[in-house]
Order: sequence, then C-alpha cells, then structure tokens
Amino acid sequence: MPSDYEQTRQNTVRQIREKAAYDRVTVHDILDSALYASVAFVQDGNPVVVPMLYGREGETLYLHGARKARIIRLLETTSTACVNVTHIDALVIARSAFNSSMNYRSATVFGSPRLVEDHDEKLHALRVITQATIPGRWDELRDPHVNEVKMTGVIALSIESASAKVSNKMPDDDEADYDLPVWAGVLPLRSAFTELQADDKVPDDIAPSDVLRDLEGKAL
Amino acid sequence: MPSDYEQTRQNTVRQIREKAAYDRVTVHDILDSALYASVAFVQDGNPVVVPMLYGREGETLYLHGARKARIIRLLETTSTACVNVTHIDALVIARSAFNSSMNYRSATVFGSPRLVEDHDEKLHALRVITQATIPGRWDELRDPHVNEVKMTGVIALSIESASAKVSNKMPDDDEADYDLPVWAGVLPLRSAFTELQADDKVPDDIAPSDVLRDLEGKAL
Repeated sequence: MPSDYEQTRQNTVRQIREKAAYDRVTVHDILDSALYASVAFVQDGNPVVVPMLYGREGETLYLHGARKARIIRLLETTSTACVNVTHIDALVIARSAFNSSMNYRSATVFGSPRLVEDHDEKLHALRVITQATIPGRWDELRDPHVNEVKMTGVIALSIESASAKVSNKMPDDDEADYDLPVWAGVLPLRSAFTELQADDKVPDDIAPSDVLRDLEGKAL
Repeated sequence: MPSDYEQTRQNTVRQIREKAAYDRVTVHDILDSALYASVAFVQDGNPVVVPMLYGREGETLYLHGARKARIIRLLETTSTACVNVTHIDALVIARSAFNSSMNYRSATVFGSPRLVEDHDEKLHALRVITQATIPGRWDELRDPHVNEVKMTGVIALSIESASAKVSNKMPDDDEADYDLPVWAGVLPLRSAFTELQADDKVPDDIAPSDVLRDLEGKAL
C-alpha cells in the first residue's frame, strides 16, 4: 500500500498548500486522537452533518449508532460520505486581526459507507470503537447480548481518499506591524480527562480498574 | 420572535427524543461556546464537511476564510448548508459496552449561505468572529487594511432551522448488570486554555493585555 493517499480533485487541499499532507501516518494520527467525527452526507439533495463516535482499523472507519437512527439508515443507502476530525491546539494571537488564526490538526476522509450486518463483524467493529475511546475496557465487560448487537447499527466506511491540514506556528505578521506596541504569541488549548466519578450504585469495595485510572489526567 | 425553532422534518431529532431541544437559548449557548463549526455542503452531488471559525449574532452565523478558498466560493453558490457544533463533556462508562456513551452538547443549524460583499458589513462580521474567539481583542488591534478585507471571504448564514441534543447523565445500566463487580461512572473531559506564550519579537516591555490574560486557564 502506498504511504500517501492519491491526490485527486476531491481531496486536494487548495488553500495554504504548505499545510496540506497526504501521508497515511499523519491522517491516521489525527483520526486516532479524537473522540468523535463529523460525518456529512446528502439527504434529499441537502447536506447533513452529524457527530458520531468511531474507531479506525487500517483503512476502515467504523461508525455506530442506534440501528434505527436516521444517520444509520441514511448512511446505509448513501454512496459517499465525508468525515472530518479537527483538533484545535492553540489560538494564534497576531498583531492584526487579519493574521490571527488557530493552530490545528484536521483530517478529512471521503469513502463509501457500508452497513455491517454480520454479527461477528459487528462485534469486531464495536470492539474497535470501544478500543479507540477506552483502550482495554472491552475485555473488562460482559459480552454484548445478541439483542444489543441487533439494536446497534454499524457502518464501515472504507477510506477512498483523505487529506490532512496541520498548522503549528507562531504569528506571521506584516513587517510594519512588528513596530506596533501589541503583544503577540499563542495561547494553547488543552483537552484532557479529569477525575473519575463513580455513580451511586458502585459498591464501596469496587475501585476503577487500571484501564480507567490510566485515562485520568490524560490529554487527547 | 418565537423562543423555539419550528420543528420541521429537517431539524427534528429522531433518536433519543428526550435529549432534543429546540429553544433558541440552548442552541445559542452551544453555538457560542465553541471555537469552530463543522460546515457541510454539497459539491457536485457529494457531501463535503469543513471546519470553520465563526461568530454568531442573533440568528446569523458569520463564517470566514480566504476569499479564494474553495469553501467560500462553494458556499457562495450553494443554497443550503448544515452546520454542527459539538462539545464532548464526559465519557459515560457503563457496566456494559452497549450502555457506555458520552455526555455532550451538540447543535445543528440549517441555513442559506450568502456571500457578504459590502465592506462595512464584512468589517462588522469580522469583528463578530473575533469577538467570539477573543472578546475585546478587536479593539486592541489596528483597523484592517482595505486589501485585507478584500482578501477575506465572509459568509453570512441565516439560521432557518436548528436543534440541539444534550446528554448529561450517569450510566443507565440494565437492571441485571448492577450485580456485576464492575466500576461505572463518568470521566469528565475539560478543554481549557493554558498559558500565553509570546513570540520572539515581542519587546520585553510589552505584556499581554488583560483581554488576553483573562483567557488563561479559561475552560471552553
């Protein structure tokens, strides 16, 4: 498999080309470090975008929702979906509004959705999705009931083309603006898990597992 | 103006109806507390979703990009766009994979994009967008040059319908699962700005303004 996604009309990043990347490692890294994806599709000629939980395995994104959810029923019958994942890393605070911006990592994927109907493949996909969010949790939990798997709709989206845009820089101001008495720099944004909070029904002698403890304080 | 958005086929939330909200206050609060929106539109029959910075004023979302950016050129000629903003607030860690989920606030807006061409309206829109990200910063900066405004593409999206979905709860497990020796609860996710970092060219005697200092440590 080539290390880069082919550059086509669909996935070519037109603006600010220096920020564009087409290599699988960059795209996969961005996809693997988010909690949800924005999934867009066309319904009756109009665009719709819905946030969905997902997990990646190789060149497949697994998305899930209730089996009867509109998004699952629509993705089942749609030929192309577009998925975007974006992390905002910092405000770039320049000496002018025009040069102010953000540092970010963003990946966009185009692919054909396929409804996963086979029980074993669904189970596998649900494991991939759980693993993406809470690594190791799946093995701590009881097996899903057959009816739970039936009630869950799983979509496999095969990545047909993809691109990334990454910006990580200090302000780039106009030469004349450096003489202004204005502070400039970046203000990082940090997204991190805080502390586990047990629900009322957890017995006193049951502590969170290491798998869960490991997530406390962890940044995305 | 009615306090709720009209419920139509387009904006009706079908799954998990108890989480749905159509009141303007809830939708506006979610829109006002994010840094970017996922903007979806149809290009050549296919869905495209792009992250964009934005600001809200009343029932208008202002989006901006480079004037020549594909997204601006496409939104200029598209009749309907769909915008989603999502905050993930916590992992909901249940006693089964099936009942595990996330706490979130999500708003979805449908509207007609209009290219803003008038210089004064563009300036106003850029002020709204800057204000949404760094309140007060606009007034600390020099006026934009005429050419900067020309090079910026601004889209006004009039909100025609909208809905929100909000989930904020502890796990809701199957009755039988409460007997399992498994910890359950929530793990909050916190997104907050950290500390300002000056670029190399800021003179020693220029400190960040109060407007910028106020953002340090602030949670989204």
